[in-house]
Amino acid sequence: MFMGASTKEGMDIATESRDIIRSLISEDIKDLNPAEKDIVERIVHSTADSEYGKLVSISNDFVDLSLKSLEKHEDILTDINMVKVGITQYDGNVYSYIKDEKVKEYAKNKGITRAAAAMEYAALEGFEGIIVIGNAPTSLLKSIELVESKDLNARSIVGVPVGFVKAADSKEVLANTEIPHVITHGPKGGTPVAVACINSLISTLKNENY
Amino acid sequence: MFMGASTKEGMDIATESRDIIRSLISEDIKDLNPAEKDIVERIVHSTADSEYGKLVSISNDFVDLSLKSLEKHEDILTDINMVKVGITQYDGNVYSYIKDEKVKEYAKNKGITRAAAAMEYAALEGFEGIIVIGNAPTSLLKSIELVESKDLNARSIVGVPVGFVKAADSKEVLANTEIPHVITHGPKGGTPVAVACINSLISTLKNENY
Repeated sequence: MFMGASTKEGMDIATESRDIIRSLISEDIKDLNPAEKDIVERIVHSTADSEYGKLVSISNDFVDLSLKSLEKHEDILTDINMVKVGITQYDGNVYSYIKDEKVKEYAKNKGITRAAAAMEYAALEGFEGIIVIGNAPTSLLKSIELVESKDLNARSIVGVPVGFVKAADSKEVLANTEIPHVITHGPKGGTPVAVACINSLISTLKNENY
Repeated sequence: MFMGASTKEGMDIATESRDIIRSLISEDIKDLNPAEKDIVERIVHSTADSEYGKLVSISNDFVDLSLKSLEKHEDILTDINMVKVGITQYDGNVYSYIKDEKVKEYAKNKGITRAAAAMEYAALEGFEGIIVIGNAPTSLLKSIELVESKDLNARSIVGVPVGFVKAADSKEVLANTEIPHVITHGPKGGTPVAVACINSLISTLKNENY
């Protein structure tokens, strides 16, 4: 498997794509280590948007601590199902609680978004592992709150919600914590960006090239 | 439900987001009808990328023929599961065959991508409805071939694969057919774009505001 491709034609496309991406963003990512470079390259691959070369910010401890968690097959918690189903090569469990009936009811009663309620639910379920958020700023803000209060055990957070309202602010909040993280500055982000980050780490682990 | 939101906080965010989007792209979409405008606005909402205001191209018959298909609860065929699970409000069936074991074997034997093989499989299964492609150019090219040879019954195609290799070309091929379609010019596109298009139509149908 190389960037999602498993057939010869798919792999040829992926190889050519990576060469183009490197020509577009090599300057932006020149100071990153190989595992970090792979994360940014995959984000650009999945969005065809080279602006991400300048938007992605990865904390120094993110790759190491995330790889340790993945190596132990700890859980992955995603904000929405689109992110969950994009994580196809992981040997551990991937959860998303947003569509859970109990979460819907809980959100309604508390007057918070289902996205935020799903994170409180995960905390109550005793989650330990990596959090991957590609959609909802409220989900990210709630995750940060729960991790900082030690109610939620996150080894790292991929925090790349998308949108013109709250998304950019929520990511800057994450960047200013001690939590190991990846963020994208500004409104851009989304499910392909989130999936690219975590799939890059899974691939790095499998190739043992870190 | 408004742009995916079901709680008060979620709806407030969606409303504010739509106002910002309108301020960014109103000039780009001024000649579109309300249903078409909603498609483009949702794409920008899901990517936070206002460049889509200039990249989206919708054929004149696309909205009407797609709505007729959705009204009859015809099937939706997607290229990958990430697109499938993003279509959460449809009262009909949504299919994706790319992970089917038979499709994997078929792709290997024919030396084509699984994405293309999945479309041939759908044709053999007698699919009728709307095709939604957010990822694979090979899937789009195969769909066009099968629709033009009358082996696949597509009322319309949402053709928004993403990537630096083949994606842009595959979309221009679609734009030059008689098949009712939405495309995004250039390499940009992706699963959130595909999901935004079809969810916009489903929402338009439910609100009966077309």
